[in-house]
Amino acid sequence: MTSHMRNPHPRVSDVDAQNFDYSTYPWQHIKVETLENGVAIVYLHRPDRANAFTGEMCASLVFAFELLDADNRVKAVILTGSGNSFCAGADLTGGFGSGGATYPREHRDGGGQTALSILRCRKVTIAAINGNAVGIGLTMTLPCDFRLVSEKAKVAIPFTKRGIAMEATSSYLLPRLVGNTKALDLILSGDTRYPDDISLLPLWTRPPLPSEKVLPTAIEMATKLATENSIVSMALCKAQIWRGLKDPEETHLIESQGIYETSRVDANEGIKSFFEKRKPRFQGTVQDLERFGFYPWWTQADVSGKISRGPKPKL
Amino acid sequence: MTSHMRNPHPRVSDVDAQNFDYSTYPWQHIKVETLENGVAIVYLHRPDRANAFTGEMCASLVFAFELLDADNRVKAVILTGSGNSFCAGADLTGGFGSGGATYPREHRDGGGQTALSILRCRKVTIAAINGNAVGIGLTMTLPCDFRLVSEKAKVAIPFTKRGIAMEATSSYLLPRLVGNTKALDLILSGDTRYPDDISLLPLWTRPPLPSEKVLPTAIEMATKLATENSIVSMALCKAQIWRGLKDPEETHLIESQGIYETSRVDANEGIKSFFEKRKPRFQGTVQDLERFGFYPWWTQADVSGKISRGPKPKL
Amino acid sequence: MTSHMRNPHPRVSDVDAQNFDYSTYPWQHIKVETLENGVAIVYLHRPDRANAFTGEMCASLVFAFELLDADNRVKAVILTGSGNSFCAGADLTGGFGSGGATYPREHRDGGGQTALSILRCRKVTIAAINGNAVGIGLTMTLPCDFRLVSEKAKVAIPFTKRGIAMEATSSYLLPRLVGNTKALDLILSGDTRYPDDISLLPLWTRPPLPSEKVLPTAIEMATKLATENSIVSMALCKAQIWRGLKDPEETHLIESQGIYETSRVDANEGIKSFFEKRKPRFQGTVQDLERFGFYPWWTQADVSGKISRGPKPKL
Repeated sequence: MTSHMRNPHPRVSDVDAQNFDYSTYPWQHIKVETLENGVAIVYLHRPDRANAFTGEMCASLVFAFELLDADNRVKAVILTGSGNSFCAGADLTGGFGSGGATYPREHRDGGGQTALSILRCRKVTIAAINGNAVGIGLTMTLPCDFRLVSEKAKVAIPFTKRGIAMEATSSYLLPRLVGNTKALDLILSGDTRYPDDISLLPLWTRPPLPSEKVLPTAIEMATKLATENSIVSMALCKAQIWRGLKDPEETHLIESQGIYETSRVDANEGIKSFFEKRKPRFQGTVQDLERFGFYPWWTQADVSGKISRGPKPKL
Repeated sequence: MTSHMRNPHPRVSDVDAQNFDYSTYPWQHIKVETLENGVAIVYLHRPDRANAFTGEMCASLVFAFELLDADNRVKAVILTGSGNSFCAGADLTGGFGSGGATYPREHRDGGGQTALSILRCRKVTIAAINGNAVGIGLTMTLPCDFRLVSEKAKVAIPFTKRGIAMEATSSYLLPRLVGNTKALDLILSGDTRYPDDISLLPLWTRPPLPSEKVLPTAIEMATKLATENSIVSMALCKAQIWRGLKDPEETHLIESQGIYETSRVDANEGIKSFFEKRKPRFQGTVQDLERFGFYPWWTQADVSGKISRGPKPKL
Repeated sequence: MTSHMRNPHPRVSDVDAQNFDYSTYPWQHIKVETLENGVAIVYLHRPDRANAFTGEMCASLVFAFELLDADNRVKAVILTGSGNSFCAGADLTGGFGSGGATYPREHRDGGGQTALSILRCRKVTIAAINGNAVGIGLTMTLPCDFRLVSEKAKVAIPFTKRGIAMEATSSYLLPRLVGNTKALDLILSGDTRYPDDISLLPLWTRPPLPSEKVLPTAIEMATKLATENSIVSMALCKAQIWRGLKDPEETHLIESQGIYETSRVDANEGIKSFFEKRKPRFQGTVQDLERFGFYPWWTQADVSGKISRGPKPKL
């Protein structure tokens, strides 16, 4: 996979995200579908190749998740695979490695670019793992907020069998999802297993499902989240969980600011509707987060690919 | 809930903690009972309102846990609810929000003040969740060292249904208690569930119990801990787990100091009694921790409410 | 246990690790056996004392794990106990404490020295807990990558019953292996339990086994890992999991360098063998890690014992 190929997509800031037509855009190796109720579905789409991950797919996924993050019509995003597979892993037919990078700090892992675009997406994200998921095919689902899986899917993270290192920020995400006992077993063994394996079970939001139930269940969950819950609240809460602070004292100070700010956005309607025993009609959007003084409390890494000019970067 | 109401309680340093009479003190919305053997019980006490959380309850809880921390007669603390409920969540009848705060960094979340007072309490703490626990009704139990729950309790953390953000340092505590797969499900869904739900199960120290067994089991556990184990050792160990260090190398240096210091307090009696096959008679108190040079290794946040003078604080 | 006894072993840099004869070396209180296929077994070896941990055992373990780390003939290490016990805990017959240390920062916990030598060992490590494991007998297995356990083993971490603090970097490792709900229960109770206890279960890589299956299963796992997987890849992945970074952005930058570097060691053979549908013949060694510019990304603590000269160390 060449992660340093020229990016064929525009910047999100150069398109009209609020009116973007997902159905006619020339996606490469993915498809994007929008349903009613603010639910979008991103399909990994190389059905003749078990949806194997390519540089083109990587660039399309990053652009898609940046768009879905910005587009206020979209409130929840499902990531699934076309056909019977979810994703067979990196397409290695074109070789593997560091693309055009000529020194270590110049490289930017394509799996990591994909994972960070999902993690940075402020909408709720649900992985609907409809079939086999291998390597990046599984690690790209780790930044999703929910993971549903087919009980027939074969699952593996075979880094140690291919001689590579952890990618897609899985070394951050996996221990936090399943704990180190399980993370070490999955990663060091590199074995292929079914989803009911003792080390895989903690990955799934719900017990493994029959294949044909995976996408419908995801759509049902996404619709409920998109129509009943506050977008601002979900966006802030998911950042609070994923971007955890290092001690509870500091956490209290950041949370206090969050309570102060959200009480000026969706909380009034949330509490009013609670007393009136009706569904809330939340108006907040993720753009509201941008005027919260404490947000974001982390520093974004530069995920751009090959750096062609200037001195070598510090990291 | 008004978290910035004038605090009606004295400072702990201004009362005689070692001889404090919990039974006659004018607690607001809580009760405090002391049993023999060093066990104290804090009851959330608004039985006609399902023990809904108020500013008065918050201030009383903070004062109570500061006292129980300082009082050497007390060795283990149980937190439970009066009547059939544990706590129905924040009492929203007086509105919700940031009290008298006029800018974000001035606010101090009342749930966080409560949670930090429990986390800072150096005695072992056991939540006996005897009935329904909603919002702050559940998050206030996260800093407890043990959580027992009634199998009939309805449990929910409905932040995203009310439009608010995470509170009570739950964004720090919950991922560390149950892992991110479960934390994201509980928080982003905001759903009401029974304690045997797959995402709730890792919260409980023991499997869910019949309602009538919750408090008796907590008393039995507290009595055993208070009478058999070293107070100094439990206080230091719980801080070591909750205030985790960021790498194992640094951890080794802090732990080494802990071993050195505890070997000068309760360890001699612990080992002597082990060889003599008798119960130990530990003499150490939590005040012994104060002369340990490495303790505390964290910085306490200022949890005070409205800041009325001087420049805006840095955070 | 005297952790500051004079160390009777040479420095690893002063011996020929690549040709070291483990069978004739005068180990104290341990035995080291090498099998074919790159598997080594370290036995805790005081069978008449249930393999209780001593200063001699500590020094031998540290030297053994430093050697096994450096010796390229060795690819996976099993830690087990001679006879029917794994390890009955610290041998307290010689007293307990801080050895010759005269002030807190001078002390270096012997359990922590052992644990760090295992954690720093870049080979895969498997604890085969063949029988009872108490205190340091359990905490010394926490830095291992895999833990197998006999269903008949009695397990306890009785720090709070002896009046001491957490050791062997368990305050870092245990919460990351089992989560805080379970860690607090195990540590604060100090109770003796069987491996199928709800708080112990997340410690085991596989469900508890019949006693006689523990070591054979460990050998089977070790042989598979040593013969099928890339040593470089396993060493880097285990460091990535254990030495976790504090945020996903920074993680992406470190992982990208890992992908770049490993693509120049074992990844070509890994991918070539995959396409040729044969087992890979990896050539990389842990020494390859030493030329990776980003490795290690942590700072090693000074684990040496009594410091006899010079000013007091900063920590």
